Amino acid sequence: MGATAARLLDPESRLAHDDHDALRLWLRLFTATTMVQRTVDSALKREFGSSLPRFDLLAQLHRVPDGLRMGELSERTLTTNGNVTWLVAALEREGMVKRRPDADDRRATVVRLTTAGRRHFEAMARMHEGLIADLFDTLAPAERRALQGALGTLKQRVRPTRRPDERS
Amino acid sequence: MGATAARLLDPESRLAHDDHDALRLWLRLFTATTMVQRTVDSALKREFGSSLPRFDLLAQLHRVPDGLRMGELSERTLTTNGNVTWLVAALEREGMVKRRPDADDRRATVVRLTTAGRRHFEAMARMHEGLIADLFDTLAPAERRALQGALGTLKQRVRPTRRPDERS
Repeated sequence: MGATAARLLDPESRLAHDDHDALRLWLRLFTATTMVQRTVDSALKREFGSSLPRFDLLAQLHRVPDGLRMGELSERTLTTNGNVTWLVAALEREGMVKRRPDADDRRATVVRLTTAGRRHFEAMARMHEGLIADLFDTLAPAERRALQGALGTLKQRVRPTRRPDERS
Repeated sequence: MGATAARLLDPESRLAHDDHDALRLWLRLFTATTMVQRTVDSALKREFGSSLPRFDLLAQLHRVPDGLRMGELSERTLTTNGNVTWLVAALEREGMVKRRPDADDRRATVVRLTTAGRRHFEAMARMHEGLIADLFDTLAPAERRALQGALGTLKQRVRPTRRPDERS
């Protein structure tokens, strides 16, 4: 791959020599996460004509058979570039989800998976779990434990201050 | 924080009991990375009225004083929700960057930092480095080494297949 491609695929290669150790570690964390996300997204596209935002949205609905209000759905959907309203409309056209007025509040709309949507999600979930297992099997048990521990420590330290679905 | 907020801020809390270990590790990696990104983005907004996409774009220009073509700039910009053309126009209105035709190819546009843009970026970069150092100082030296090593192993395993600026 060319210099540009190398730069593209590995932000670490953009670090100047005098950058701080913590910056180097943060950039590696960001790079590894981005690479896994792109790999999963590409596989979902290639094998199911889907994407990570669609998969995440269907995953939330799959956990609640009775369905979720649009508001709850966008709160639970973490993929920042997934426009929930747009995605739900597209998924309804494909017969994967159904929208109906909320019985308790007619102004609210409840979204739930159709049988086709549930089967579609479950097939993607099997592929997704297999792919993640395959990617992370490169880590020795001790490396996995170290990663789980260090990331847990980092999570405790960071205090998020924005909703996942807020834009930059 | 309420149940919804907890779910919002920590995707791990959405994992079903029967989820695979690798999925749990991936979700923790994704969560920790997202939390750091949001913390940095919020600090850039609060202290500079800026954002992570703007910071990343200015960082790329800061490395190349003579400027970059629009194409090179979007290739180097990794923040997926940063619309480069839109950001450059906004930054030019604020006097942070200047656009001019490429001397070698009049159809191409070259973007470079203005003096104000360089000073603005350098102030943000100092804050950013301090914030990242502060967040990661929670990790013991051994934890940092373990994280650096495990993420390096993971990076080697993952083969990215898409351009960073592609959309899902």
